[in-house]
Amino acid sequence: MSDQYVIGVDFGTLSGRALVVAVADGRELGSAVHPYRHGVITEALPTTPDRPLPPDWALQVPSDYLDVLRRAVPDAVRASGIDPAQVIGIATDFTACTMVPALADGTPLCDVPGLADRPHAYVKLWKHHAAQDQADRITRLARERGEAWLARYGGLISSEWEFAKGLQVLEEDPELYATMECWVEAADWIVWQLSGVHVRNACSAGYKGMLQDGAYPGEDFTAALNPAFADFVDAKLAGTIGQLGHRAGSLTPQAAEWTGLPAGIAVAVGNVDAHVTAPAAQAVDAGQMVAIMGTSTCHVMSGSVLRDVPGMCGVVDGGIVAGSWGYEAGQSGVGDIFGWFVEHGVPAGVRETARERGLGVHEHLTELAARQSVGAHGLVALDWHSGNRSVLVDHELTGLVLGQTLATRPEDVYRALIEATAFGTRTILAAFEDAGVPVAELVVAGGLSKNPLLMQIYSDVTRMPLSVIGSEQGPALGAALHAAVAAGAYADIRAAAKAMGSVRRAVVQPDERRSEVYDRLFAEYSALHDHFGRGGNDVMHRLQALRREALVEGAP
Amino acid sequence: MSDQYVIGVDFGTLSGRALVVAVADGRELGSAVHPYRHGVITEALPTTPDRPLPPDWALQVPSDYLDVLRRAVPDAVRASGIDPAQVIGIATDFTACTMVPALADGTPLCDVPGLADRPHAYVKLWKHHAAQDQADRITRLARERGEAWLARYGGLISSEWEFAKGLQVLEEDPELYATMECWVEAADWIVWQLSGVHVRNACSAGYKGMLQDGAYPGEDFTAALNPAFADFVDAKLAGTIGQLGHRAGSLTPQAAEWTGLPAGIAVAVGNVDAHVTAPAAQAVDAGQMVAIMGTSTCHVMSGSVLRDVPGMCGVVDGGIVAGSWGYEAGQSGVGDIFGWFVEHGVPAGVRETARERGLGVHEHLTELAARQSVGAHGLVALDWHSGNRSVLVDHELTGLVLGQTLATRPEDVYRALIEATAFGTRTILAAFEDAGVPVAELVVAGGLSKNPLLMQIYSDVTRMPLSVIGSEQGPALGAALHAAVAAGAYADIRAAAKAMGSVRRAVVQPDERRSEVYDRLFAEYSALHDHFGRGGNDVMHRLQALRREALVEGAP
Repeated sequence: MSDQYVIGVDFGTLSGRALVVAVADGRELGSAVHPYRHGVITEALPTTPDRPLPPDWALQVPSDYLDVLRRAVPDAVRASGIDPAQVIGIATDFTACTMVPALADGTPLCDVPGLADRPHAYVKLWKHHAAQDQADRITRLARERGEAWLARYGGLISSEWEFAKGLQVLEEDPELYATMECWVEAADWIVWQLSGVHVRNACSAGYKGMLQDGAYPGEDFTAALNPAFADFVDAKLAGTIGQLGHRAGSLTPQAAEWTGLPAGIAVAVGNVDAHVTAPAAQAVDAGQMVAIMGTSTCHVMSGSVLRDVPGMCGVVDGGIVAGSWGYEAGQSGVGDIFGWFVEHGVPAGVRETARERGLGVHEHLTELAARQSVGAHGLVALDWHSGNRSVLVDHELTGLVLGQTLATRPEDVYRALIEATAFGTRTILAAFEDAGVPVAELVVAGGLSKNPLLMQIYSDVTRMPLSVIGSEQGPALGAALHAAVAAGAYADIRAAAKAMGSVRRAVVQPDERRSEVYDRLFAEYSALHDHFGRGGNDVMHRLQALRREALVEGAP
Repeated sequence: MSDQYVIGVDFGTLSGRALVVAVADGRELGSAVHPYRHGVITEALPTTPDRPLPPDWALQVPSDYLDVLRRAVPDAVRASGIDPAQVIGIATDFTACTMVPALADGTPLCDVPGLADRPHAYVKLWKHHAAQDQADRITRLARERGEAWLARYGGLISSEWEFAKGLQVLEEDPELYATMECWVEAADWIVWQLSGVHVRNACSAGYKGMLQDGAYPGEDFTAALNPAFADFVDAKLAGTIGQLGHRAGSLTPQAAEWTGLPAGIAVAVGNVDAHVTAPAAQAVDAGQMVAIMGTSTCHVMSGSVLRDVPGMCGVVDGGIVAGSWGYEAGQSGVGDIFGWFVEHGVPAGVRETARERGLGVHEHLTELAARQSVGAHGLVALDWHSGNRSVLVDHELTGLVLGQTLATRPEDVYRALIEATAFGTRTILAAFEDAGVPVAELVVAGGLSKNPLLMQIYSDVTRMPLSVIGSEQGPALGAALHAAVAAGAYADIRAAAKAMGSVRRAVVQPDERRSEVYDRLFAEYSALHDHFGRGGNDVMHRLQALRREALVEGAP
């Protein structure tokens, strides 16, 4: 095993990254990034630059993904200095839910002659949010019919998911929908390209395709959404389900040529970027939660029992590790709230001082805020600038800052916003605890783990030590680890995680004195959370409705 | 009358302004400003620069006021081109409550040899807020004893007023308190300097000295505050009460020398800057409210009946016009909230765009905000950054902004803050209406009347046409008008206001369509106002208490 290597390829929103990893111990030997040529298409198709796309659309071009295989993989192998012949497997992870409309042989519709100018022929990226109407109808119908699976998704079906996006294709371009023979997760499409085998990974199928207890929503359900949608599952979602870490197939000669890797090596079943990170952080046992913290936060945790956790994003059998229940929760706004504040709420003077000190604005504000004792700013905020996923499942909720005086300064608000997201996390932890799947360890991954003030606040607020993933490339390492299992180097993901994963345990410890003050502030947050989030005062909904009316009205 | 003139001198926070006015028609012929040499003393006495003053202190030097008489008055007369012999009277108005500790002959204690290094020997400016403990005890005691006069002040005695500041002198420098033979409003001290007569004006004595129905709070009350304070009224507040517009006395030879005016001309009883503005705006009848809008807003209105208006600052017999009840209410933060936001919440890009357009930041934000239709920003705010005077009487309340998303921009918040202050005004108007002293006309004075968006929002929110005072120098014109009455040129203030005052009536009209939307937003404001301001959730108080604890704690 000492001279064996695996490749993990992480397909992100703007680029793909390949990582070469030693099978024996998870050492990272080389990596390479390849940006997607077309990035995220939100304005107009490359073929019809004068025809603007409607709002909330976000498309991609599948050939960009293949370029990652052609460029980033060989580059990473070169950078690592290994002999490609020593590579025994390759695995991928992808953003989700990102959907490719394809023919039965996997050809993306946008590559079919005559369809390149049809927006629905392109990949619908996870953040394509134009199927909100369809999603609302799916949620409503499921609620009306008392569908048992609805609780597995915290009571809300997202506009980002397979059914909503698929229904949008049908209703907006029925001809193209009829041409489409396969509606496939990009996570599975890329595996198809590598191995020639079409297998749907259990993670995406469960979290994004509403596959529960071995079945998708039934034909009576899809027919009730739209009669023409009745056979959606049979006609568009065909394909066997593959467990995470299983071998999907072998690298085809064609893919071997793209990547420079030996034909015939193991190709693992596809995976999702957040979920694949858990084993990379050695978080494979019940109660080990990984929070992937960036612009938003995704919480993934394995559990030995099935419970309905209010407001979770999903619970899926084998959704993180085969044989366990995979729980997912989320905070829809975290780093993007801090970014918004720095862009739109910080005066020139602060920016200049940061520059003079040779710091970024975030770093400078963090330093100023770090000097404060807990509660000194007199503020409490609600972190709902992008709505609230867990636990309230309400994307119409909005932000709030309370307690400003003429003495309030930008660093005060910055700290209050960080604290609000920490309170949001504590609220999620409490929901899991109350539902009978307690969180025993909290592991942080993602870019925000680099902010020491934020990490300390999260630890003090949650009263938990924080562990941090050991790798800078969590998803790619997680994918590599799955490649090793698929290649047979380890018996299962748990064994591979132990050998190849990496975590620094309890690197931040809560401080009892600060935690006591935060208990008081969290009580304030919770009271506001419930008042504005659970119907005490529906002002946020009314303001959003009024905003929509006013924007239609237009006149001052 | 056509060749007669009067002088109005307005003593502000940082400077004094003299204005020469024609008795016949109120024409303003010339003015001059003289800044106070010592400004506002908040850090250290000029005599002891190394000895810092405690927080919340704000002192002034009385000789600075005399410099205004020596410099601004002759400058204004020169600028007007009139012959000083044509001046028949002089009157003043002052910030309040601004208190001078003096000997029996009017000598300020800070001018008494040996006392120049004693902080309590100086003038306590209106915004000296270091007597909060004393004010709290006064309010509490009045409540416990069921003092009838407490309701005349909306249930709260301010730390700015005569008794609180006097009690602070006693308790912090008893020796100096014993030396002090007279505790006199600067408004009356300056009249004393001009006329040699010590007369207390009915306005200050009523609003700031708690003189009601001809009597100050009794000796049993002051004794219960502090046994040594028992004889405060008799020992320190002696002096006859003078009605507004009455003649206090005649210009002394000494004051004639200072001012270059003829000795013997009428000197009017003192007055307060806000209240003196009402007749300058011809608002002397019941139901005509003048809102003087600057950093804060002061509302003054005459009424023919006595009513308890919840949360008003005071109701005083002859407090604005002799023979009427003078009502006062206030919003503790208005322009200062907009100023704070522009200084601490507006990013560099907005500032640069404003500069490129040749506009100030306020003007630029106003223009951006003016393009929005009502409700388009999706926000509602509470304007309590400096607490709330009317109608809640709670200086521990704090600001709130609700409804932010990642799409929220600085002009959105700016507009929401303006709207919040307009909702605050509507709340005050409703309180007067409910108490049986309805507001029939709203006249705006002060710097904010120049902001057209703000004026339109106030009109739309209150559903009232707005009138605007015709003079840029409302207080000085108001003082001049009182000088004319004191000199006998008019029978009373009403007659003088009609001839000399100036107002542009109903220059802004409410728009029904916008008013309807504002009714909905005002309902949201009111719900939040009552929830956070009337005990539904006391989070603001708790956060302020926690803030104080945390600032003492110090450690991060």
